[in-house]
Amino acid sequence: MTGGPATPAPSIVPAPRQAPDALVEYLLRLGDDRLVLGHRLSEWCGHGPILEEDIALSNVALDLLGQATMFLRLAGQVEGRGRDEDALAYFREVVDFRNCQLVELPNGDFGFTIARQFLFDVHAVVVLDALSRSGNAELAAIAAKSLKEAKYHVRHSGEWVLKLGDGTAESHQRIQRAFDALWRFTPELFAADVVDAAMLAAGVGPDLAALQAVWDGLVRDVVERATLSLPHAAPPIAGRSGRQGSHTEALGHLLAEMQIVARSHPGAKW
Amino acid sequence: MTGGPATPAPSIVPAPRQAPDALVEYLLRLGDDRLVLGHRLSEWCGHGPILEEDIALSNVALDLLGQATMFLRLAGQVEGRGRDEDALAYFREVVDFRNCQLVELPNGDFGFTIARQFLFDVHAVVVLDALSRSGNAELAAIAAKSLKEAKYHVRHSGEWVLKLGDGTAESHQRIQRAFDALWRFTPELFAADVVDAAMLAAGVGPDLAALQAVWDGLVRDVVERATLSLPHAAPPIAGRSGRQGSHTEALGHLLAEMQIVARSHPGAKW
Repeated sequence: MTGGPATPAPSIVPAPRQAPDALVEYLLRLGDDRLVLGHRLSEWCGHGPILEEDIALSNVALDLLGQATMFLRLAGQVEGRGRDEDALAYFREVVDFRNCQLVELPNGDFGFTIARQFLFDVHAVVVLDALSRSGNAELAAIAAKSLKEAKYHVRHSGEWVLKLGDGTAESHQRIQRAFDALWRFTPELFAADVVDAAMLAAGVGPDLAALQAVWDGLVRDVVERATLSLPHAAPPIAGRSGRQGSHTEALGHLLAEMQIVARSHPGAKW
Repeated sequence: MTGGPATPAPSIVPAPRQAPDALVEYLLRLGDDRLVLGHRLSEWCGHGPILEEDIALSNVALDLLGQATMFLRLAGQVEGRGRDEDALAYFREVVDFRNCQLVELPNGDFGFTIARQFLFDVHAVVVLDALSRSGNAELAAIAAKSLKEAKYHVRHSGEWVLKLGDGTAESHQRIQRAFDALWRFTPELFAADVVDAAMLAAGVGPDLAALQAVWDGLVRDVVERATLSLPHAAPPIAGRSGRQGSHTEALGHLLAEMQIVARSHPGAKW
């Protein structure tokens, strides 16, 4: 835990606006990662080459959408402006989304989907494990529930990484290409900004630098056992991150599709 | 059980080809209904106006795809020509599909999806309940497992029928219109042909005429409580049915989308 900001000095002037805003941002990041990735994975439903795997990926998608619902609902409650999880999911614009860019990338082939999923799943396990001990009891409860699912997800995606990497020449080549293409999106997962610093200082969020080392070790262990390779270091992040609303073109298309029904019938209760 | 064919007379010349073929056809019907409807429902995933309902419908879709997998796997085993559930799902043509036309109809609005689902779910419960006592032990086991899920599904769709029918003027009007449009597709669910007769005679399948009366009573009870109405009688079936491979144009589009990945990489193991 070295390197993080020190515990804030006690003050007789509390800053109530600052803490809730950072918490809302932080919850949106957790929710949006899962909402967007859940939607991406659901695009596989009924399109995979193997029924069983189709069902497995769709189950992961549903878990992620369920987690997104919980995180976004809490974000709406903390925000206190009357937006529920549906308003947050269906009536925000691209620039208001706080997901990392990794999760919004188009599915590509099955190997690409699996590599992206594995990188995210390991991130989810280490982050949710830390958050299950968060000083915010509601967040800790959601994290603990989600962690159980994430542990199953990473076992699934990790086994596929091993199978594809150590499989046929084509499967090996395809998933290696996927990791090569995805690697530059991974630094964003651990790039701490003022929101993360505020969460760490408040005892709500984890020390991302410490988690990144754990993540890196877990990822490399599986990738090497799969006879695949990764660059030694992650590249620096170029420009603004998805955490601040900077997204690839792909997110706009995804949201257009995801939001069309709700926006066509605003306020519809049926 | 009156009206069904009598038990066949014992013969010293068994007809092994006849019985397995009818059983394969019968299993394909059970599997294809669920494969096609599961795919239709999965189209809602990430497109509904309410996150929770999106997830609920997707869960039903996954249950149906899981049931389809079991029925199609058994169909392939009984057929004995080396086709597994994936080969049956992804490498048959439209005319080889044995689902009823009801399940292949495009989703329409949410009310249409719910009305279609409710009509199918009641059918599933009465058929699976009978099949859980089938003389074919493997079929009985799959039916018993599926029945538990179907009972949950019909509770869900039935509650929505009540909510929409007894809801706003618009929701009432929309779901009434859905039932009006869907009604002509319901006789096919219970139209017994030679395959059903063979299954009944062999102690494998139910007496469809008896089940239709139960289905009709269950459907009308909920529809009337929802302040909706149904025609007094179902129209006769016009022309060939989906059970013999006659389908609406919509199935072709659905299969094209569902089968594209598997057909682009035939035999791919990754």
